[in-house]
Amino acid sequence: MDTSIFIHEKAIVEPGATIGAKTRVWAFAHILPGAVLGEDCNICDSVFIENQVRIGDRVTIKCGVQVWDGITIEDDVFVGPNVTFANDRFPRSKQYPEKFLQTIVHTGASIGGNATLLPGIQVGAHAMIGAGAVVTRDVPAYAIVVGNPARIHGYVSTTNSKTVQSQNSGTEPEALSVARAKLVKLPRIVDLRGGLSFGEVDRHLPFVPKRFFVIHDVPSVEVRGEHAHREQHQFLVCLKGSCSVVLDDGKNRNEVLLASPQLGLYLPPMVWGIQYKYTPDAILLVLVSDVYDADDYIRDYDVFLKEVNQGHG
Amino acid sequence: MDTSIFIHEKAIVEPGATIGAKTRVWAFAHILPGAVLGEDCNICDSVFIENQVRIGDRVTIKCGVQVWDGITIEDDVFVGPNVTFANDRFPRSKQYPEKFLQTIVHTGASIGGNATLLPGIQVGAHAMIGAGAVVTRDVPAYAIVVGNPARIHGYVSTTNSKTVQSQNSGTEPEALSVARAKLVKLPRIVDLRGGLSFGEVDRHLPFVPKRFFVIHDVPSVEVRGEHAHREQHQFLVCLKGSCSVVLDDGKNRNEVLLASPQLGLYLPPMVWGIQYKYTPDAILLVLVSDVYDADDYIRDYDVFLKEVNQGHG
Amino acid sequence: MDTSIFIHEKAIVEPGATIGAKTRVWAFAHILPGAVLGEDCNICDSVFIENQVRIGDRVTIKCGVQVWDGITIEDDVFVGPNVTFANDRFPRSKQYPEKFLQTIVHTGASIGGNATLLPGIQVGAHAMIGAGAVVTRDVPAYAIVVGNPARIHGYVSTTNSKTVQSQNSGTEPEALSVARAKLVKLPRIVDLRGGLSFGEVDRHLPFVPKRFFVIHDVPSVEVRGEHAHREQHQFLVCLKGSCSVVLDDGKNRNEVLLASPQLGLYLPPMVWGIQYKYTPDAILLVLVSDVYDADDYIRDYDVFLKEVNQGHG
Amino acid sequence: MDTSIFIHEKAIVEPGATIGAKTRVWAFAHILPGAVLGEDCNICDSVFIENQVRIGDRVTIKCGVQVWDGITIEDDVFVGPNVTFANDRFPRSKQYPEKFLQTIVHTGASIGGNATLLPGIQVGAHAMIGAGAVVTRDVPAYAIVVGNPARIHGYVSTTNSKTVQSQNSGTEPEALSVARAKLVKLPRIVDLRGGLSFGEVDRHLPFVPKRFFVIHDVPSVEVRGEHAHREQHQFLVCLKGSCSVVLDDGKNRNEVLLASPQLGLYLPPMVWGIQYKYTPDAILLVLVSDVYDADDYIRDYDVFLKEVNQGHG
Amino acid sequence: MDTSIFIHEKAIVEPGATIGAKTRVWAFAHILPGAVLGEDCNICDSVFIENQVRIGDRVTIKCGVQVWDGITIEDDVFVGPNVTFANDRFPRSKQYPEKFLQTIVHTGASIGGNATLLPGIQVGAHAMIGAGAVVTRDVPAYAIVVGNPARIHGYVSTTNSKTVQSQNSGTEPEALSVARAKLVKLPRIVDLRGGLSFGEVDRHLPFVPKRFFVIHDVPSVEVRGEHAHREQHQFLVCLKGSCSVVLDDGKNRNEVLLASPQLGLYLPPMVWGIQYKYTPDAILLVLVSDVYDADDYIRDYDVFLKEVNQGHG
Amino acid sequence: MDTSIFIHEKAIVEPGATIGAKTRVWAFAHILPGAVLGEDCNICDSVFIENQVRIGDRVTIKCGVQVWDGITIEDDVFVGPNVTFANDRFPRSKQYPEKFLQTIVHTGASIGGNATLLPGIQVGAHAMIGAGAVVTRDVPAYAIVVGNPARIHGYVSTTNSKTVQSQNSGTEPEALSVARAKLVKLPRIVDLRGGLSFGEVDRHLPFVPKRFFVIHDVPSVEVRGEHAHREQHQFLVCLKGSCSVVLDDGKNRNEVLLASPQLGLYLPPMVWGIQYKYTPDAILLVLVSDVYDADDYIRDYDVFLKEVNQGHG
Repeated sequence: MDTSIFIHEKAIVEPGATIGAKTRVWAFAHILPGAVLGEDCNICDSVFIENQVRIGDRVTIKCGVQVWDGITIEDDVFVGPNVTFANDRFPRSKQYPEKFLQTIVHTGASIGGNATLLPGIQVGAHAMIGAGAVVTRDVPAYAIVVGNPARIHGYVSTTNSKTVQSQNSGTEPEALSVARAKLVKLPRIVDLRGGLSFGEVDRHLPFVPKRFFVIHDVPSVEVRGEHAHREQHQFLVCLKGSCSVVLDDGKNRNEVLLASPQLGLYLPPMVWGIQYKYTPDAILLVLVSDVYDADDYIRDYDVFLKEVNQGHG
Repeated sequence: MDTSIFIHEKAIVEPGATIGAKTRVWAFAHILPGAVLGEDCNICDSVFIENQVRIGDRVTIKCGVQVWDGITIEDDVFVGPNVTFANDRFPRSKQYPEKFLQTIVHTGASIGGNATLLPGIQVGAHAMIGAGAVVTRDVPAYAIVVGNPARIHGYVSTTNSKTVQSQNSGTEPEALSVARAKLVKLPRIVDLRGGLSFGEVDRHLPFVPKRFFVIHDVPSVEVRGEHAHREQHQFLVCLKGSCSVVLDDGKNRNEVLLASPQLGLYLPPMVWGIQYKYTPDAILLVLVSDVYDADDYIRDYDVFLKEVNQGHG
Repeated sequence: MDTSIFIHEKAIVEPGATIGAKTRVWAFAHILPGAVLGEDCNICDSVFIENQVRIGDRVTIKCGVQVWDGITIEDDVFVGPNVTFANDRFPRSKQYPEKFLQTIVHTGASIGGNATLLPGIQVGAHAMIGAGAVVTRDVPAYAIVVGNPARIHGYVSTTNSKTVQSQNSGTEPEALSVARAKLVKLPRIVDLRGGLSFGEVDRHLPFVPKRFFVIHDVPSVEVRGEHAHREQHQFLVCLKGSCSVVLDDGKNRNEVLLASPQLGLYLPPMVWGIQYKYTPDAILLVLVSDVYDADDYIRDYDVFLKEVNQGHG
Repeated sequence: MDTSIFIHEKAIVEPGATIGAKTRVWAFAHILPGAVLGEDCNICDSVFIENQVRIGDRVTIKCGVQVWDGITIEDDVFVGPNVTFANDRFPRSKQYPEKFLQTIVHTGASIGGNATLLPGIQVGAHAMIGAGAVVTRDVPAYAIVVGNPARIHGYVSTTNSKTVQSQNSGTEPEALSVARAKLVKLPRIVDLRGGLSFGEVDRHLPFVPKRFFVIHDVPSVEVRGEHAHREQHQFLVCLKGSCSVVLDDGKNRNEVLLASPQLGLYLPPMVWGIQYKYTPDAILLVLVSDVYDADDYIRDYDVFLKEVNQGHG
Repeated sequence: MDTSIFIHEKAIVEPGATIGAKTRVWAFAHILPGAVLGEDCNICDSVFIENQVRIGDRVTIKCGVQVWDGITIEDDVFVGPNVTFANDRFPRSKQYPEKFLQTIVHTGASIGGNATLLPGIQVGAHAMIGAGAVVTRDVPAYAIVVGNPARIHGYVSTTNSKTVQSQNSGTEPEALSVARAKLVKLPRIVDLRGGLSFGEVDRHLPFVPKRFFVIHDVPSVEVRGEHAHREQHQFLVCLKGSCSVVLDDGKNRNEVLLASPQLGLYLPPMVWGIQYKYTPDAILLVLVSDVYDADDYIRDYDVFLKEVNQGHG
Repeated sequence: MDTSIFIHEKAIVEPGATIGAKTRVWAFAHILPGAVLGEDCNICDSVFIENQVRIGDRVTIKCGVQVWDGITIEDDVFVGPNVTFANDRFPRSKQYPEKFLQTIVHTGASIGGNATLLPGIQVGAHAMIGAGAVVTRDVPAYAIVVGNPARIHGYVSTTNSKTVQSQNSGTEPEALSVARAKLVKLPRIVDLRGGLSFGEVDRHLPFVPKRFFVIHDVPSVEVRGEHAHREQHQFLVCLKGSCSVVLDDGKNRNEVLLASPQLGLYLPPMVWGIQYKYTPDAILLVLVSDVYDADDYIRDYDVFLKEVNQGHG
């Protein structure tokens, strides 16, 4: 065995297990014959790793975790102490499913201590699962989830991220750090007959809309959007209630709360957008620069990043 | 005096009063010297008519009504029994205003028995005031008002009027009897994440919008709109709650209930529009074909009719 | 003319009008040729009575009232000052309906001063219309109505009427003054898992039910019931919200508020019942002693009184 | 008869009626023998006045009004056309109460056209009843009432009255035109744990409170206060919801809307205060400078005015 | 020791512990002297089992579980990884209760990974506890519980179970797979005066009711019913809101959602019934074929099964 | 090594670790060189203790717990099985914070099985954390917290603690067991115009207030107060909704529910106060005996206890 590998004398590494260079295995850990571990991992006390398991490089697994058949952990993942995985949705003693449900924890994700993951879950790249969370659905890339059952609480900040205050007091459009996106203050007239907000092309909208849509009745746990447009421009106004919009141009990231019918958000093409934290009464108006075209949508974040880097945007 | 006129022997018509041909004045009626009455009127028992009063042709005034200085009643009006007019907003004994407030009851209007009209009211042509109503504001042409205080309950049907069912099941725009107006069924997508309605230029909108506004928090007693556009096109969607829209091209009249975010109403230029019966939670989105231009608005129904007949529309 | 009749020297009774003995007609009153008035009536100053009018005995009509063609006023009715009747639902000057709508004010009813009655209304026997009310629907016998539009506010007490407190503290059925009707306190068990009320044959129900029905979502202005059963027994429990029940055996009358799922009301056969003042959330359970039989229902109060007096009950 | 009196030739003034100097009685009016009318009154066409009636000086009674036995109208009152009084709460034809209910319309009050007053009502001095109102309760002095049933809508302005905007932006106490009363802006701290408003002696309160009370759950139709203190100071803060306060020092009058927990109102002694227009959720905190003392209250507005003029305040 | 038993060389089985045939004990597990384990169990890595513990046959205990004094695990139970039991309600270091609270996990139950069970809990036969649940109350047989705190989410399906759609469109009673139970569509009449549903003996009810009860205000977490009747018939209608009823005749199982006052559910004798998922506003009417008799109730599911199999039903 | 110490043969205590007398370390436990453990501790199977850890005397740590660098556990603490600590708020594999967040579990606290504590938490003395709770904020002394996220559910009773019923029926102030604190029944006057509660200096308030503040819109999860005053007196009235107040004079402890505007709570100086369990609509009025003075506040419970024992109070 590679001498850069450390196996504590009280650990059990069964013959046949594959252990990468510089990986350390601590006391009372137990690794079954079929397991494959990458390089530079840290496998702490009392960790148990079954056979049909693949673990990437630079993974940390803290004490008291079991990694069952069917679980894949990619590079750079952190698994907190006593995290509990599962591979059978309705376990009964002595009854085994034909195939275990596959759980994948993608690159760079982090799972807080004592979290529970139901079988068959995908944890997106760089997502963060709160300590004690009970994860019952897939977790999007970069999402932060907490609670029982776990709900999206926010998105992981990147170095260039910025949360924008929603109420600019002036009337000039306000630039965001995400390329070419803008926050626009809309005029409002209130009289005895009620309130009226409006926006005009050029003065408030940097494009002529050819399509509009309205999103409403979104359950508060839901996330919408999660795509970018290749050519189309969008303009968002939350007419009632509020929601949060995450914008991402591949380099910078903003989060904007739309909580007033006076606040418009301009989204240019090639900006990844996510809307979430809808209040129960939220009504989101979206104006778009062209008619619907399925080819204009990028729905896979990796494809989006690739096109951004090819200079599409 | 014209022998076609009938004056009951117990009536008092003061010298100087002007009475049109074929008009009848019944017992205990009392007409002061300055009053001017048109032809073919019927002035019933105990009616009292002051000096500065003009009454048109073919007017019926039932028993127990007083017509005070400052009141004008146009042709073909019906005034029910015990209807009560006023000409002083804050009457105090022995204190007189410099000039009495002017009340005008326009052609063809009908005032139900025992209704009360505050001073300075305009009752629009062909409007109908319910029995016992207390009218505290001007009444639009064709409106039906009831209650204390009186609120608009509906609009008088004309021969060419039509109330349109709001839910057309097909996807084709539905023509209305009002010239070139259309009801448009908007696509809607509902899934676990909520509902989404949208509309596109050409497919749903017959114009490119350059302005939008949103009407909300309208007290239910209020009427909005009441104007026509000379050049601009409008598209209305009620995103939440509901409201009723009356359309009138000068010849035909429609009433449409907007009660679904899936229902768009296209209003071409030279259509008079009225919106009323807002629910408390109603949010009305209006898309307009051009930026705001005060000269594009016709706010006087008579001007509108004149321009329609000049072939403007 | 009968010398017991008094006609004020300033009154006008047109030749052909029929005036009963002891009736008095005061100054500035005007009675047209076809009218028929009963005995011992009092027709005050400035009253106007048209041709197709029938007025019973002992009727009082106060000043400023007009009684139009098509209106019938039965015996012992009181019509307050300035009360306003109508006989044309959509009056337009010089346009007359083929036949005037018939209004009937039944025996013993009272109409408060300045009330307005729409055309075609039936005012039930002994009903009382509040001063200033605007009556837009038929008024049941004995009902008290007020407001604009007028709503039922209660029922007139008779000498033998009694309003029953709904919460008897004991467990014994409580007799009412209406023959054989009973209020029954039902047992109730409340624990952490919720509340449970129950009733059993013999202990609480004086009959074995063969039918049940449930009334709900009654608009608060509505009255239900208004009938008696010839043979069937009923048992009413208001499971949620509240409603008022008026019981009447032809001699005595009770009003009971059902406001608790613990309060059952037993209605024997030949008791007239009315339910009204439903709260918006009221749910009324009715258990009945036999299956539905249309012949068992008496829906006309006069028929009911007749059958009661024939000893049916 | 005094030659300054004018009686129209078609009027009937029965022998025995008392008519004051300069009073005019117009056509078809009818005054019974026992009536007593003051000087300089104007009794218009078709007015009917019974026997047990006292009418003061300078009273105007417009056409179509009947004044029944038991009604007193004080000086300077205006009674609009077709106003309807009553003197029997439950009128039945040919059944008379032992004594008619007494209605008194106090000095300077005005009754709008076609209003209805139930029997036994007191209309306070200078009060104003809206046209078409149905008055079912006593009306306070200076109050304006409208609707069916009539509710207080406001208070009559006097020459020196002023409605104060409730939100002064500065932090200095703001003087009102009512002597020594002040509006005080209170500090407010809002953080994640909620909001907090406070006030301190000297900085915000011009006295040391020895008593506080809290008013809540006031039905919106109700009026509270309606008294002055001889020696005690008060400080009012509306913690939730809102209410309106009318202040009156006998010369000047202010109306203040308390709609923010940040707004304090200081009421010095000898200021008459009325609170009304409570929202359903209103909670009014009152700090007072001394413990309760019944002798400190003046509850009769006339007594208050007398003490003010004696220099008490 | 029985050679069919496998003890991993790194496990510690203290002398005195009883291990059944074919049972396997894996690495780092530790079994104290008093423990009794059945046959064919699987005791995984790092499991700790104290002295006063009884474990049945075919039990699986996954890694990282401790089974404390006072815990009994019956046959065929599955205990997921890191499941945490307790035996002291208010643990304090070095303070011991006189007797540990007894926890029993009944036959065939399954406890999801990382679940927490408070002390003294009974987990019913075949119940399923969701991963990460925190169980604070007893869990009924077959129930599925999830969350923190754990609430009943549903009931485990058996081979013969069926969830019934609540709205049969026809009018014929619909048979269920549970013996002789039926869903009955009740007639409903809706007009402007509200809604009315009814049912009659023979047409809708297969028995004459002698008792009724009404269940309301059930907190949504509560389960009611959980018993069978030996002789009595029941008929359930949910008049407002909704609740779910589980029926079980010992062989087949149905779940019915009662969500309409038009839907009646007939439960014959010897059917085990459970009601749960009450909405906050649910009102459940139950008609029963005889008066209350405590001996008619079977409240223990095992007794019910025994009587069913003895042919009682 | 002290022979009173027991180390199981399968445990690993690294050289350099400090173990107090009478402490026991069980199988598969692993203690790193830098750890310091007090006397008479019980360290159960599979516990892992890192280097920068200090553990007091008489501490119990049940199976499956890891105690990481940066965690301090004071005397007499109980740590239940599988409790999971953390020391890095945003753990990423192979990325280490400069300094681990410090977690302190104070004297006598108890942590239920499978609870999760986020990094940097302070658990107050004698607090109790429910099984399965996920603790995301500091836990006050004596508090009981449960749920995910954990919320305060109550406070641990001490020998001298007493929960006070909020409605004393008499009018005398009611002494509490906390020194000099009093519950005061405030007078209340309810009539048709609403309700009114008041309090007066001397009669109800034992001091003259110079300051008042109002707390409102408190999210229900929040705790306010948590301080004592050195010199100032307070008087609390909950005007709407309710909240609970914990009082503590260092020897005795009371919990009072303020749920009526009629109930005042007098807090003398040197009483520690906590307010929690605010209903969403709660409005708490606080009268204070002097203007704001930061030096009058004691915000650290230990400082408070010290000053109490120095006879300050």
